[in-house]
Amino acid sequence: MPDIIEPRLLKGFRDFLPEAESARSSLMRKLENVFSSFGFVPIDTPVLEYADILLGKGGGETDKQVYRFIDNGGRDVALRFDLTVPFARFMAQHTEDLYLPFRRYHMAKVWRGENTQRGRYREFMQCDFDIVGVDSASADADIVLVIASAMEALDVGGFIIRVNHRGLFNRFLSRLGVGEKGSAVLRLVDKMEKVGSAVTRESLAAEIGPDAADSVMEFIRREEGFEPTMDKLVRLCPEGDALAAEAGKRLREVFEIAEATGFSRSLSLDPSITRGLDYYTGIVFETTLQALPDIGSVCSGGRYNDLASLYTTKKLPGVGSAIGLDRLLAALEIIGRQEKLGGSPQVLIAHPEGASLPSLHTAAAGLRSLGVWAEVYPEPRKMQIHYAYAEKKGIPYLAQVDASFESSGLLSIRILAERRTLDPMDMKSVAAFLSKGST
Amino acid sequence: MPDIIEPRLLKGFRDFLPEAESARSSLMRKLENVFSSFGFVPIDTPVLEYADILLGKGGGETDKQVYRFIDNGGRDVALRFDLTVPFARFMAQHTEDLYLPFRRYHMAKVWRGENTQRGRYREFMQCDFDIVGVDSASADADIVLVIASAMEALDVGGFIIRVNHRGLFNRFLSRLGVGEKGSAVLRLVDKMEKVGSAVTRESLAAEIGPDAADSVMEFIRREEGFEPTMDKLVRLCPEGDALAAEAGKRLREVFEIAEATGFSRSLSLDPSITRGLDYYTGIVFETTLQALPDIGSVCSGGRYNDLASLYTTKKLPGVGSAIGLDRLLAALEIIGRQEKLGGSPQVLIAHPEGASLPSLHTAAAGLRSLGVWAEVYPEPRKMQIHYAYAEKKGIPYLAQVDASFESSGLLSIRILAERRTLDPMDMKSVAAFLSKGST
Repeated sequence: MPDIIEPRLLKGFRDFLPEAESARSSLMRKLENVFSSFGFVPIDTPVLEYADILLGKGGGETDKQVYRFIDNGGRDVALRFDLTVPFARFMAQHTEDLYLPFRRYHMAKVWRGENTQRGRYREFMQCDFDIVGVDSASADADIVLVIASAMEALDVGGFIIRVNHRGLFNRFLSRLGVGEKGSAVLRLVDKMEKVGSAVTRESLAAEIGPDAADSVMEFIRREEGFEPTMDKLVRLCPEGDALAAEAGKRLREVFEIAEATGFSRSLSLDPSITRGLDYYTGIVFETTLQALPDIGSVCSGGRYNDLASLYTTKKLPGVGSAIGLDRLLAALEIIGRQEKLGGSPQVLIAHPEGASLPSLHTAAAGLRSLGVWAEVYPEPRKMQIHYAYAEKKGIPYLAQVDASFESSGLLSIRILAERRTLDPMDMKSVAAFLSKGST
Repeated sequence: MPDIIEPRLLKGFRDFLPEAESARSSLMRKLENVFSSFGFVPIDTPVLEYADILLGKGGGETDKQVYRFIDNGGRDVALRFDLTVPFARFMAQHTEDLYLPFRRYHMAKVWRGENTQRGRYREFMQCDFDIVGVDSASADADIVLVIASAMEALDVGGFIIRVNHRGLFNRFLSRLGVGEKGSAVLRLVDKMEKVGSAVTRESLAAEIGPDAADSVMEFIRREEGFEPTMDKLVRLCPEGDALAAEAGKRLREVFEIAEATGFSRSLSLDPSITRGLDYYTGIVFETTLQALPDIGSVCSGGRYNDLASLYTTKKLPGVGSAIGLDRLLAALEIIGRQEKLGGSPQVLIAHPEGASLPSLHTAAAGLRSLGVWAEVYPEPRKMQIHYAYAEKKGIPYLAQVDASFESSGLLSIRILAERRTLDPMDMKSVAAFLSKGST
């Protein structure tokens, strides 16, 4: 006998067993339906790309988190670490084949050699959606409406999409005169949720002085309702500033669309949202679940000026968002709404000693043709074994193919949880009963 | 301006643009439905694993086709090159958490540094499904029925699943007395479809002599119908051989189940099917499309003795198959049945100059709530621009939100291909019209 290799996984990598994979896959199907209903189309890109494409010219010093290596052909390659960089390369490369405005979604794995002690995984699923090639309130609103529709489709309970506009924040900072320290201010504000407002004020004071810090704290405080918040933001921006006025108008339009489509309840104007990165230039947003505010944002994003400047001189403004699939999945499990669709068959066809194989499979095929997911237990076994198997797999019903099946077409259904067998029924009645039972 | 990095892909890697990705994704959804209806459940495993897990103890000499490297933590790792090896590792590792018999499917990408000159890709999608932990005719038949059901669900036109039993072939070879040359014989026969029967006979003669070669050629010749073929196979095996009798019985049971469930038309007993590999021990099969016999098998597999012997002492017999997703997708495109479901929205909401944004988005939201995929053109543009966009994206209808929309709720639908605008309709009539138009 050869030596056994111990079966094991790399740190930070996971297997998905059927229940978990069914839940993930069901979640993805629901999101796909929402994306499609808003006109988003799917794309896919390779897992492996040239390192300079993913990391910029020369690749720079290698980020320790990136899986990068030399392939057998001597090429410097890396596993993608997000879906944004490959999308930028994709848009630059396929300009001729694509139409603008282009709205796409992409759900796929990415890899980062993160510190696993913080409960992070090195292989995880990302879900990005963007509208590229247009700068409009309609596009901004569509991204927000997709998020709201997705949260409703996933039945996550209450949620709040907190929205802000980086243009307003920038104009306020320009009036404040903090110059090049603006980026630092944005990053400090972005961290406030984690560190608390006292620490944030202190850090701001250290960066730009106590008076300016107080002004920032006033600016980012959320007021009751959209109008009072908006009034304050406009008041704190330079008077008569055209850019600030434009940003305010954009926000107002987005909120009007949300109002008209019935989603305004889930939107909140929150001046403390900045999304740190310099990348964003317009609307920015984060989404939190009311049942689980502590897990942080499950869906964030914003508007950017130029998606693909690394790969093309063509200007591609856009707005987009990423859903944290793993975080959302964990959240759904915690609040008891983990999806189980697509997991278990509805009925197990019993396979007693001496059964007719053609009859068992004919019964299963007949039920399938009526839309029932039916599985034949694949060898003769005692009923206790069937029961244990069905319970482990989450199959609620057992069908017994009666001796008379070939002539009568009758099946006896056993409700396993109730240990009760119903009188024999024909296939159509079985299918009707099972579809009722499964709702 | 910084230097532009030329957007490009690694050789053998592909982007999937929306139309291709929609087709692939639709194909996968249809397969998932078939798998689920037979009680198969999904799993997922990491893309990256320890090299010794994927390649065996010590990793041996590295196969040039495997993407293998040392990660930032000094681990010897590789990208999976198939889904069978990770599945074996998975079954050995999760024995405690899984139930047997276990039927799973797995659709995911794998990587091989193949010679791209033969039109092969280095990143491609595999689709495996297996029933593990049982050795029975019912399980063998279920795998074959899944294939037949999948081909019907995909509407590929006529197809033939050619079935054989390696046990019968082995007993025949034992009677022939070719000893250790049996494996070579199986591989030569496996290649016959590519090289032709004359070359095969010649190669066989060189390997085992002209008389034995003639016997093999007689054995593998397909006779008209199941019974005559079966009679010949039994006749050429050792007389009264128990193993041959058992193999013959198994084949007969599988064909009886296919007959009872209405699939016998698509099954053919073909003694020339061997599937080369020593791995297979029972039933083996290949699937060819009648419209495209030249592309080879789109779905093959068979029964094996022991899935996970590298990782566990626990014996795991099974039967399984792999669908060549890329090949099948290419075939569907050639025969004009490429799927386009899930691709384009049904209706584009026109966005003329001066339109009310809330009205446009309310109209879209209303249609979505009636099940229609509706997209708002995201900025004001001339109708010609709308038409061009809709045509490129494959959207068949344009909806004009009339000035009276807010009070009347009426929309005017334009059938773009016919350049014809219908009288204004309310939302329900629009939804009913679009769902009729899209069938």
